[in-house]
Amino acid sequence: MERLILHEYAPSGNCYKVRLTAALLGVPLERLGYDILKGETRTPEFLGRVNPNGRIPVLQVGERFLPESNAACFYLADGSGLIPADRFERADMLRWMSFEQYSHEPNVATLRFWLAFVGKARLSEAQRALLPGKREAGEAALRLMDEHLASRPFFVGDRLSLADVALYAYTHVAEEGGFRLADYPAVVGWLDRVAATPGYQPMGS
Amino acid sequence: MERLILHEYAPSGNCYKVRLTAALLGVPLERLGYDILKGETRTPEFLGRVNPNGRIPVLQVGERFLPESNAACFYLADGSGLIPADRFERADMLRWMSFEQYSHEPNVATLRFWLAFVGKARLSEAQRALLPGKREAGEAALRLMDEHLASRPFFVGDRLSLADVALYAYTHVAEEGGFRLADYPAVVGWLDRVAATPGYQPMGS
Repeated sequence: MERLILHEYAPSGNCYKVRLTAALLGVPLERLGYDILKGETRTPEFLGRVNPNGRIPVLQVGERFLPESNAACFYLADGSGLIPADRFERADMLRWMSFEQYSHEPNVATLRFWLAFVGKARLSEAQRALLPGKREAGEAALRLMDEHLASRPFFVGDRLSLADVALYAYTHVAEEGGFRLADYPAVVGWLDRVAATPGYQPMGS
Repeated sequence: MERLILHEYAPSGNCYKVRLTAALLGVPLERLGYDILKGETRTPEFLGRVNPNGRIPVLQVGERFLPESNAACFYLADGSGLIPADRFERADMLRWMSFEQYSHEPNVATLRFWLAFVGKARLSEAQRALLPGKREAGEAALRLMDEHLASRPFFVGDRLSLADVALYAYTHVAEEGGFRLADYPAVVGWLDRVAATPGYQPMGS
């Protein structure tokens, strides 16, 4: 495989997804950090060379750049056991990865970022107005996960896939955004199973 | 292939993505309509049987249900020329599909839905407050697409992939949300190329 460099902001769950995928696969990954709170991913150089969308993570593969966490995870895991071999299950994995990006991350991750990183006192009025809706939608996402996991060990089939990696990243730190994980016992059991997977690497490492 | 039924709301671009993928592949698809403006995807029966997330589209494959448009498109196209054979390009396709769901759809599609379907007069105060931010983010997404397409015929490699299908759906009707496509000439040229693809089917059919 070509040289792999992760352009990242380490506390971001989206970046952790890529690191965790690489760790589970035993693939070495160099890391290059940016402080998003200081706008380091909005510089002309970053926009011109790394990602015109101004976001991290971006996986650099040789001289090519791959933005979007789900795409980076898929690239790393392509052909491995982290992507189900069954056609329906492979699509079902992408279903849960889409659910994460669309129904989970904008609520569970955004509340964590706003409350634990930016700070409630520094939120704009518009952001404050969004808090109750994001709280409700975040709880709905966690409830849906809890119901799904009540009868299954992992999100798709009977083994860990990228769906679990994607959903694990922000769920396991959801309490930093004010969510009570104890309200979702099946989720707590699943978090433990993910963390017990060989090769697992915690977020802070 | 098992019997395929698309649970949909026909004017939704997310549902059109699935129909367009099936049409390009020549795969027959039955259709079952729900009126989302009347809450027909939030009934206990829909939530219990079709999608606990209360959203369409859902692709029914025999007796199994696959929510999320990108997952449904991937299922239909798996193994076809709509998914690049090259590993990096395959991931890059997912990159653009993620971009569509995260940076394009919540702005370009939501403004269309709010302005052309719900009606500006019926928006809540919270929704009205979001209009300027969504306008700006939608223009940024279209600009990024325009710059990318200035030197390429399609989003990934040199042929049509699911990335184009996903981005076509809401872009080609973006003017219903108040965007001026003439401001994005490379996008206009690309829309024409997609519509000229053998098997192409328009949204209203």
